[in-house]
Amino acid sequence: MPVKALVFDVFGTVVDWRTSIIEQFQVFGRERGITVNWEAFVDDWKSCYRPSMDAIRAGRLPWSNVDGIFRKKLDLLLGEYRIPGLSEAETIRLNRAWHWCKPWPDVVAGLARLKAKYVLSTLSNGDVACLVNMARYGALPWDCILCAEIFRHYKPDPEVYRGAIALLGWEPEEIMIVAAHNYDLRAARSHGMRTAFVPRPLENGPGQTSDLEPEEDWDVVANDFGHLATVMKT
Amino acid sequence: MPVKALVFDVFGTVVDWRTSIIEQFQVFGRERGITVNWEAFVDDWKSCYRPSMDAIRAGRLPWSNVDGIFRKKLDLLLGEYRIPGLSEAETIRLNRAWHWCKPWPDVVAGLARLKAKYVLSTLSNGDVACLVNMARYGALPWDCILCAEIFRHYKPDPEVYRGAIALLGWEPEEIMIVAAHNYDLRAARSHGMRTAFVPRPLENGPGQTSDLEPEEDWDVVANDFGHLATVMKT
Repeated sequence: MPVKALVFDVFGTVVDWRTSIIEQFQVFGRERGITVNWEAFVDDWKSCYRPSMDAIRAGRLPWSNVDGIFRKKLDLLLGEYRIPGLSEAETIRLNRAWHWCKPWPDVVAGLARLKAKYVLSTLSNGDVACLVNMARYGALPWDCILCAEIFRHYKPDPEVYRGAIALLGWEPEEIMIVAAHNYDLRAARSHGMRTAFVPRPLENGPGQTSDLEPEEDWDVVANDFGHLATVMKT
Repeated sequence: MPVKALVFDVFGTVVDWRTSIIEQFQVFGRERGITVNWEAFVDDWKSCYRPSMDAIRAGRLPWSNVDGIFRKKLDLLLGEYRIPGLSEAETIRLNRAWHWCKPWPDVVAGLARLKAKYVLSTLSNGDVACLVNMARYGALPWDCILCAEIFRHYKPDPEVYRGAIALLGWEPEEIMIVAAHNYDLRAARSHGMRTAFVPRPLENGPGQTSDLEPEEDWDVVANDFGHLATVMKT
């Protein structure tokens, strides 16, 4: 059965969130004359992401979108790093740094090739507004925005993968997930989707130790989106 | 407060579903040597749409997406019009005629102008797969596909408008709905959205009597999407 649609993890797989967010905070720091180790700040900030989603998945926290998760942690970090006196508008602007992440250099050309043959959708834990802003900013040609906020469940909850399969209207094996994270491919495969691993060894910075290699025999392993487009015969 | 996003009703407002579907059935009839009054057939078919959605809204029928609504009626009509012996694949192909509707002639150029300044989303009673196929077929540059199937409620249920406002992440008055149907604008306005009426006097064929004129003082009344783009200063 031929693949009809590709669904993409976004943070890490499509966009280089870490570099993009550090850069935005560096600009903010220069504008305001604030000296902080922004790399450490952003790594601290990101560290709340998986535990918060897992707490929501386990029912230990009520539903919140990612904007809410990051805002809670940002408010704490602004105290810890002694950055006082931000207006609400400034804090919202900083919290939305996640909306303005740049794609990895291979992404735009690869997606353009893939779009000619396949339906392209996000399948991200990010919020709708964030993914829409990012697509406009980075020229990402999605046919559809599907994400955790629509299903009110975070990956790897089954509702996300089954929800996407139902809404896209194809058989599970006609849909291929593209991700830089083995856990995501593992969950998608358990629901019958095809799987493509594109490693992003610098996603978490120079010291990254996870997801450097495929951990199962994924249907496709590609170096980048150009390679993926070639393997997928586009 | 300036408008940030435009959300569009699709069937009738963006695409000329009636002409598009009649044409597809005429092609099918010629291929199979079947002579039927396809205009009457398609009008009969469409007549199930609003009553079925309203029955679901009222809880008299369980949830079904539009694909399911039209399939049920199509199976009945194939009997009534004495069109026997279709394979399941042929019936699915006919039922998906709604996926391959052509935009009105002013739409693609108008949306391209609007996209430069505004986030563009569907806000349709149609299904995700249908809207995705239609966008690829008609070159409709949506940033986002929002529709009844995502909220499991049909317009004019509040859940659709409030759901879109929440997912897009703007204030209600920063979102403008564009529709050829007064009922849709009325509901959207009741949730605080801005409203644009674009009449489509041929949507239902030459004898159309409804929605020929604006029934309230909508924020914008435009002749077509080119006029809308001009009024919206793009």
